[in-house]
Amino acid sequence: MKSQSLLSAAVAALGLVTGLTNVTYGDEGMWLFNNPPRKLLKEKHNFDATEKWLEHVQKSSVRFNSGGSGSFVSADGLVMTNHHVGADCLQKLGDQEHNYYRDGFHAKSRDEEKRCVDLELNVLMSIEDVTERINAAVKPDLNAEQAFAARRKIMAEIEKESLDKTGLRSDVVTLYQGGQYHLYRFKKYTDVRVVFAPDQQAAFYGGDPDNFEYPRYDLDVCFFRVYENGKPAQIEHYLTWSQNGATDGELVFVSGHPGRTDRLDTLAELQYLRDTGFPYLLERLYRMEVMLSAYSGRSDENARQAKELLFSVQNSRKAREGGLAGLLDPALLARKDADEKALRSAVAGRADLKDALSAWDRIAGAEKTRAENIRKFTMLEGARGGAAGFASTYFTIARTLVRAAEERPKPNGDRLCEFRDSNRESLELELFSEEPIYDGFEQARLASALTFLANQLGYNSELVQKVLAGKSPEERAAELIKGTRLKDIAVRKALVEGGSKATAASSDSMIALARLVDPEARAVRKIMETDVDEVKRQAYAQIARAKYAVEGASTYPDATFTLRLAFGAVKGYEENGQQIPFETNFAGLYLRAKQHHNRPPFDLPPRWVERKDKLDLNTPFNFVCTADIIGGNSGSPVINRNAEVVGLIFDGNIQSLVLDFIYTDKQARAVAVHSQGIVEAIRKVYDAATLADELTGKGRASP
Amino acid sequence: MKSQSLLSAAVAALGLVTGLTNVTYGDEGMWLFNNPPRKLLKEKHNFDATEKWLEHVQKSSVRFNSGGSGSFVSADGLVMTNHHVGADCLQKLGDQEHNYYRDGFHAKSRDEEKRCVDLELNVLMSIEDVTERINAAVKPDLNAEQAFAARRKIMAEIEKESLDKTGLRSDVVTLYQGGQYHLYRFKKYTDVRVVFAPDQQAAFYGGDPDNFEYPRYDLDVCFFRVYENGKPAQIEHYLTWSQNGATDGELVFVSGHPGRTDRLDTLAELQYLRDTGFPYLLERLYRMEVMLSAYSGRSDENARQAKELLFSVQNSRKAREGGLAGLLDPALLARKDADEKALRSAVAGRADLKDALSAWDRIAGAEKTRAENIRKFTMLEGARGGAAGFASTYFTIARTLVRAAEERPKPNGDRLCEFRDSNRESLELELFSEEPIYDGFEQARLASALTFLANQLGYNSELVQKVLAGKSPEERAAELIKGTRLKDIAVRKALVEGGSKATAASSDSMIALARLVDPEARAVRKIMETDVDEVKRQAYAQIARAKYAVEGASTYPDATFTLRLAFGAVKGYEENGQQIPFETNFAGLYLRAKQHHNRPPFDLPPRWVERKDKLDLNTPFNFVCTADIIGGNSGSPVINRNAEVVGLIFDGNIQSLVLDFIYTDKQARAVAVHSQGIVEAIRKVYDAATLADELTGKGRASP
Repeated sequence: MKSQSLLSAAVAALGLVTGLTNVTYGDEGMWLFNNPPRKLLKEKHNFDATEKWLEHVQKSSVRFNSGGSGSFVSADGLVMTNHHVGADCLQKLGDQEHNYYRDGFHAKSRDEEKRCVDLELNVLMSIEDVTERINAAVKPDLNAEQAFAARRKIMAEIEKESLDKTGLRSDVVTLYQGGQYHLYRFKKYTDVRVVFAPDQQAAFYGGDPDNFEYPRYDLDVCFFRVYENGKPAQIEHYLTWSQNGATDGELVFVSGHPGRTDRLDTLAELQYLRDTGFPYLLERLYRMEVMLSAYSGRSDENARQAKELLFSVQNSRKAREGGLAGLLDPALLARKDADEKALRSAVAGRADLKDALSAWDRIAGAEKTRAENIRKFTMLEGARGGAAGFASTYFTIARTLVRAAEERPKPNGDRLCEFRDSNRESLELELFSEEPIYDGFEQARLASALTFLANQLGYNSELVQKVLAGKSPEERAAELIKGTRLKDIAVRKALVEGGSKATAASSDSMIALARLVDPEARAVRKIMETDVDEVKRQAYAQIARAKYAVEGASTYPDATFTLRLAFGAVKGYEENGQQIPFETNFAGLYLRAKQHHNRPPFDLPPRWVERKDKLDLNTPFNFVCTADIIGGNSGSPVINRNAEVVGLIFDGNIQSLVLDFIYTDKQARAVAVHSQGIVEAIRKVYDAATLADELTGKGRASP
Repeated sequence: MKSQSLLSAAVAALGLVTGLTNVTYGDEGMWLFNNPPRKLLKEKHNFDATEKWLEHVQKSSVRFNSGGSGSFVSADGLVMTNHHVGADCLQKLGDQEHNYYRDGFHAKSRDEEKRCVDLELNVLMSIEDVTERINAAVKPDLNAEQAFAARRKIMAEIEKESLDKTGLRSDVVTLYQGGQYHLYRFKKYTDVRVVFAPDQQAAFYGGDPDNFEYPRYDLDVCFFRVYENGKPAQIEHYLTWSQNGATDGELVFVSGHPGRTDRLDTLAELQYLRDTGFPYLLERLYRMEVMLSAYSGRSDENARQAKELLFSVQNSRKAREGGLAGLLDPALLARKDADEKALRSAVAGRADLKDALSAWDRIAGAEKTRAENIRKFTMLEGARGGAAGFASTYFTIARTLVRAAEERPKPNGDRLCEFRDSNRESLELELFSEEPIYDGFEQARLASALTFLANQLGYNSELVQKVLAGKSPEERAAELIKGTRLKDIAVRKALVEGGSKATAASSDSMIALARLVDPEARAVRKIMETDVDEVKRQAYAQIARAKYAVEGASTYPDATFTLRLAFGAVKGYEENGQQIPFETNFAGLYLRAKQHHNRPPFDLPPRWVERKDKLDLNTPFNFVCTADIIGGNSGSPVINRNAEVVGLIFDGNIQSLVLDFIYTDKQARAVAVHSQGIVEAIRKVYDAATLADELTGKGRASP
């Protein structure tokens, strides 16, 4: 699973629409540590989630502020996470002679542990429910704007008070879509040093073909150590290592930071995604993937230029295919339908929730409007200026320049959101980026995009005719790229300084194109913002409030990158009539490499070839379980009833990609590295016996 | 260019809709040898196409009945063509120890020349216009069916009479869409032996990424020799070798057998293809290419299973992208528009052509119906049973069985065309084929197809709901594949023997699916056959007759796999603001391999690496010219004014793919191997000095 999915989703999650659900299903749930599913665990799994157990697991869990999860695994501050979570740090530590990200890293002694440049880890020390205090400060007679300001004020007050009192980082988090507010206090660690990472080829074995797939053979693990005052931090709560690791059928828990879920989505919204949103997105992704692959095939230099975009397109394509497959499972949507009907009927019975009664229909209406406008919107506007009909870095720059000139003179609140003062710095960082632009690549992308534009909006439409200006897409793209000087950052700066006078007078081909397209692009954006997004925002807020009023906090809130506890069984599944076993082993890794003639991305790193005979090939390597996870859970420990480490989450299978919207354990699985595989590999392939001993407690006094 | 394009098109061409045009443009035209563009050549190029010159070139030209063109290049029956035209013969000559197709072949003496299994070459010896005799036999008062029978009868009579008299193969060919009928007499050669072929990697250097591209570096050449009575045939007319080969700007000719063009297509039809047909086909091809690539990436065995289909999808995708790019060139469609207006206004002025007046509007109406039905038709019916919504070999077999049972009891003329008696043998060959079926591959294709079906016809449509039967596409595909026994050929045979009773009673999952889909599939097929194809057939016949009445035989007829003469200039072109030179050389080949680190498909065969120092790297290798060619021209000689060989056609560039509909010399180019490159390579890389001497006439008495 790439950073786009398990990581970035998490980063973007804070403050987004969240929801809740009452009827949990199977092993569903990303539960709050202060509201765990005690009854369910007792009844279904005969497990007592004691306060002590919960506190221990909570304080053993670590949040990576770069996105992702981890856990303490020794008294000396050792932290375990995924290689792909540690990737950013590994990359930044490299230099011309060292590529730690690609080749791995191993500190043979603590002296050799290398401090990360900008990594911060947080540990959640306490949770306090401050809902009443917040609600008391937000008087019912305030209008929306006043309420927002009052809420921000009391939140800031609570946070400051807590920081002053405890010295701990203190955040008030919004849960249940505003049904509850909790104060989270974190211990911060800023001196974080890398201890061990395998080669990237072992961590991400199977590359893109195996991404989101199972069975898997990945050593996606990485170890850090937190320091205080220049010494390894002494940690009270850390997870010990299980003797056996995960076994078939056993109850396991995942403690981590799922980034974002959309389980409040109405049936109408899911139907839109199933029938229009995902198929249309996939149509574009298929098209782009073929274009980028074909371009890459022409030369090594082309492949280099296109690599990053191709990689991201393939990752999105896989993720969306998985999501669509889930939405096409009628059992899942039937469950959603039943839940929705139950809630609607409860709402109908309560006079105090009258305003929410029509919310579902208003969302259905908005989805209809969205379906009608999505093609035009995607072609002309897209997300963050990435209009699919003009796919070119030059166009993105040109549009930003044209719009900045128009927007900046307006009062801050009246501007398009990306031009508000708060975003100025990051917008300029992007606009004046030295990132190289390759004209051949721009030509290939833009010609393909203009062809798509003509097909999607109709060749004879007025706008398409104006855009193509009497030329074929290929010729017009060449003309546009030849006629722009926006590669020169000085030219961009001059246009920013010159304001709307400068952009209006500019004869630059791309500036002229951006000017030409802007009225229609703005018009369709306005429809989407006003008639879709705003309608949905209001309706979802009403549904969330109604849901909370009906169901209370009897369940878990949508994921918000806060610490959650999930649980489930270690369990294989059936796929296309075949039983997929719950675990893989090292023998399977070597077999897979052999079947692929050791060709990338299925090649074994040389030391794995050399050390084959030393390894016990029957050692479990990866396994799956039914725990409810999503992007942000990367690096979460998988633990047993005794809170011992049995594995390490690093991916979800393709069937798990629907978990964004709805939980299912039919085939959806969390994919983890097995604890025994970790120890066997670091001992016998990487000669990291000291680390293995620290993990397994060998040489440690019995507790 | 793959066999799909330059070859197979040719095979399918005979008897298809053909057209004509009066206004030729630039170096347009695939001219008849008995109706050459004498005036144009004289005025534009100051060239006299004398009877003697024409006869010499005609009789030096060779038709490969496997599809493709060639020429005599020595008095001893040496024939030159492309490696990819000779591929079929090379493959059939191979055995467990010899892969001549892949590794090449070189007969060091005539004794070593190997006889092909089933290759027949034809040489056109004479053309006789028999239009009057045919028309006289087809009385004007006959109805369509009677006219057809009468025409067939007189054609057979003429052919038999000619064969009896001359002993030559005699075919009456239809030209100008029935405006003319010519009797073609061919000398047949059936003892054809292979003399020389390079390794396939040299012939098809650059593989798929370079297919339909330019600049190129391909030695796509192959030599055969025709024998008579066990000895090399002595040939009167053959092409001699040019001293210099093709030079920039010079006038050249191409003599060969273009397979099929559709230049009669109306503007409405081209607009349909531009706005609906090609974009929709490309949408499917993009989707399939990604699915097949992803499936292939999972294992070597997967890649092997998917290879052929993936290759063909990529080839079609490239071809259609090129065609669409041409259709999106407004200059081309404006020319078509002007030509069409001129013809329509001429028709309007003639009372005898009254019936054709509305033909254009009827075609436009049919194209509208086609656009409305194409998605459903493609999903449920497709071409030759290949319904895109059920892409699976099992489904194709099941549908054939279900329909055969229903169709065979009907009178021959009432059946769906593929079930007519004339097609019985080839249908059964396909139906009872031992070709292996891989269930994993079927699963991947069918699950993707059912997903596409749900999206295209609407998830909630009655048919989709019935097809999915309450399951997700993935699950349903697994269930269908698990539930069929059609892999067993005995099961298929039993169902054929059991007839409609057996298919109706069968509980085989795929048979049941085929039964379920059939009513709607037949219904949409009927709309397409009746309201589109038949309407167009009649309207195009009227337009063709009108065109012939107005313009006569003053121009060339659409391609029909008969011998044609094209001409043009050796000339580079501009692409994306860059000038593409007219020729490449060996130095460029080595540079390209180096830039790609000699990785497939840009790797050099070992002997090319060894012999690099022996080669004159400045020798021209490939070049382009503006001659009007299309699929079927593969292997055509490129000759100069003196009828000397200067090159060998083997491909068209991506911009030439629009030539199916309309000629353009802006960027469209025929791609050829340069005569000097051929001789230099066979001498210095392949040590085939004897062959090179035979070609260049070294050691031959001066004429």
